[in-house]
Amino acid sequence: MNITVIGGTRGLGRWIAGFLKGEGFRVTITGRDRVAGENASRELGVEYCPDNVRAARDSDVVIISVPIENTLDVIREVAPNMRRGSLLVDVTSVKEEPARLMEELVPEGVDVLPTHPMFGPRIRSLAGQVVVLTPLRKSRWVERVVSFLKDRGARVLVTSPEKHDRMMSVVQVLTHFAYISIALTIRDLGVDVGESRRFASPIYNLMLDTIARIVSQNPYLAYSIQVYNRYGERVRRGFIGAVERLEDLLRRGEKDDFVRWMSFAAKCLDDVEASLGRSDKAIFALNKELDVLKDSVGREVGLKHIYSGNVHVGVLESVDPDFAVLRVGKRRVKLKVSNIRVLDKDELWDWKVKNLPRRSYDISAMFPEGCDPEIIRSVIEGLDGVVKASVIDIYKGDQIPLGMVSVTFRFEVIDRGVYEKVKGLLEGFGAIIR
Amino acid sequence: MNITVIGGTRGLGRWIAGFLKGEGFRVTITGRDRVAGENASRELGVEYCPDNVRAARDSDVVIISVPIENTLDVIREVAPNMRRGSLLVDVTSVKEEPARLMEELVPEGVDVLPTHPMFGPRIRSLAGQVVVLTPLRKSRWVERVVSFLKDRGARVLVTSPEKHDRMMSVVQVLTHFAYISIALTIRDLGVDVGESRRFASPIYNLMLDTIARIVSQNPYLAYSIQVYNRYGERVRRGFIGAVERLEDLLRRGEKDDFVRWMSFAAKCLDDVEASLGRSDKAIFALNKELDVLKDSVGREVGLKHIYSGNVHVGVLESVDPDFAVLRVGKRRVKLKVSNIRVLDKDELWDWKVKNLPRRSYDISAMFPEGCDPEIIRSVIEGLDGVVKASVIDIYKGDQIPLGMVSVTFRFEVIDRGVYEKVKGLLEGFGAIIR
Repeated sequence: MNITVIGGTRGLGRWIAGFLKGEGFRVTITGRDRVAGENASRELGVEYCPDNVRAARDSDVVIISVPIENTLDVIREVAPNMRRGSLLVDVTSVKEEPARLMEELVPEGVDVLPTHPMFGPRIRSLAGQVVVLTPLRKSRWVERVVSFLKDRGARVLVTSPEKHDRMMSVVQVLTHFAYISIALTIRDLGVDVGESRRFASPIYNLMLDTIARIVSQNPYLAYSIQVYNRYGERVRRGFIGAVERLEDLLRRGEKDDFVRWMSFAAKCLDDVEASLGRSDKAIFALNKELDVLKDSVGREVGLKHIYSGNVHVGVLESVDPDFAVLRVGKRRVKLKVSNIRVLDKDELWDWKVKNLPRRSYDISAMFPEGCDPEIIRSVIEGLDGVVKASVIDIYKGDQIPLGMVSVTFRFEVIDRGVYEKVKGLLEGFGAIIR
Repeated sequence: MNITVIGGTRGLGRWIAGFLKGEGFRVTITGRDRVAGENASRELGVEYCPDNVRAARDSDVVIISVPIENTLDVIREVAPNMRRGSLLVDVTSVKEEPARLMEELVPEGVDVLPTHPMFGPRIRSLAGQVVVLTPLRKSRWVERVVSFLKDRGARVLVTSPEKHDRMMSVVQVLTHFAYISIALTIRDLGVDVGESRRFASPIYNLMLDTIARIVSQNPYLAYSIQVYNRYGERVRRGFIGAVERLEDLLRRGEKDDFVRWMSFAAKCLDDVEASLGRSDKAIFALNKELDVLKDSVGREVGLKHIYSGNVHVGVLESVDPDFAVLRVGKRRVKLKVSNIRVLDKDELWDWKVKNLPRRSYDISAMFPEGCDPEIIRSVIEGLDGVVKASVIDIYKGDQIPLGMVSVTFRFEVIDRGVYEKVKGLLEGFGAIIR
């Protein structure tokens, strides 16, 4: 299947191209900047074509991933040139206009799927990510895309373009607008945010983190989300009204009204108790991880970088709320605590099994005749540090005393010292090592 | 040591009274409502005294925990009556005025410690909680309180009343004001918040949770925080200015200015990368827990209520993002996922060891003479389901074949089936059970 990603040289489009390539599709990217396009083509191992229309004509699926303000123009250019039986997708943050225009301009026999992936190019897999689809009609293509996404763990939501845009006027327009305003205010006041964190509860820190997350987004995308959603201005006007009324109440000292309004506002929230629980748990998880790290100083730990996926295993030399210092062999590695996750015992062991060289040992021992080599093998395999164990020989005969049997086990270990542990175990049960 | 908590019948004051009682102090609470006072007195096991002045005269430490608007009056009533060598503390959310007034009115030889605990009465321990102290002078009492709090795991921050109030004008005034306004807007728009969550990324859900947390606070306290912080109005004015300027830019389509302002706003944040990391990790932890639950359907799990601390152990029958249903013996228990934490394997085992009845078994077996009973014991104790094992007898003699030794182990288990596992293990190594 040939898939073209228009605007696949950067940002989300590039992510989509790389993802689909990894899924085994033949992918072509287009983009106005030829140098960027050829670089991306080389890095992702996909085709680059400078001509949107030419690429679209040859494709089974065309995905438009360009800035919102260019989306309608690209639809006008590409939609009429789609070939029969193909699918046209856009991934813009507003859906009403693109959906309408795509439907209007595609030839008969071409399906349309307006889409809004609720994630950015920083994610590493689709698992757990929300994808909103707003098809105007059912089609075989829509069904295929839904199954494809669900199979990869995405949470797929099918709705109408209008409902999508109304929801986004709150989910995105309102929250972005309010959070950017908070950050602007803090900046204007000249407050040292780092210092303010020391004064505050963990939940304030989590609030600041969510504000930072919004404000550090691509500002061009943030702008487009504000101005291209046709409910956006109404929502912002509503917010400004709320802010002004609230300030008015406070200035006039209308305590009872303030209290009534705040209780009224709280009623809009769906399940406050669940919100408290979830945010408490999020805080708990972050604190617990730091506690685990503090308790692990001087011991071996595995730290996984949450974005690159790289794992660093070594002895933890020191840790503070910002940095962990690890000794890996002769190197010293300094890692930002916010970017790493501590592997649990099983994860660390799995990593070692996959990544460290193993040594294989054989050990022969004499046991009473009635023994069960399989049970002994499973005890050996259950020892900390043994990757696997097998029975390779069972011998009874001349060189073995009467009533005894000699069993030879082969086992693989990562740390050298484990051989002595296995030997000690067998001897402990009275076996005679040969 | 006698400690009086003025306003100890409700809210944070009540929490403080219960906490100090648990720490072994003699605690008296006061409060205007005699019925509430006597109820709290009975429930907490502390004294109740309806007269603030009388209680204060008899105390080594007096803690004023009343609404902000009453704090200054209570200080005027109590401070002049403190006895020599005692300590006067208040726990109000603003610090400049109370600090000044307490210092002015206490007799010589009385120490003053203006305090702001950055937590509410929902917490279960001081560990990890922030307590801001704003003493105007050093004193032996201040040192004692700092050590007391630190010993219990609190994060103690000592600063000036002015700096505290300036920081709180951002940490509390600004964030509360903005979040209440967001909630009011959502309410005015008539958006179904529960439905909007389905449309959104996990981070939006975490944002909503932090908004819910702020908006569901005590509205009287929220009001007081807005109006009694003397920097509050300036901060709110700044926010309103930011909101209006931002809307103005958007309405005029000033994209470049918007982008410049947003980038400017982002610069106020201390470490965006760390913010992204922490919020990603918080999300990861919440998602991972749900995944663990989903993978555990049909199996035994331990679920701990995050507020009550109660643990429910049983077979997980079903789970969705809202509820988990557990079969505990013959009962079916339905628990809110947001309020529970899944115990890990070690925690579950520790809970069982503490809470379930144990059975004790003895087993005697003959091993080759060269065996080491201690090693065998440690293997038995390491088996899943064995609480502890000991060697209670070692016998060599008439009834035992030459070259053999009989060892008797005693071990405690929780599940009945474990005896067979131990027997199988020993037989597997060729031992003969007697």
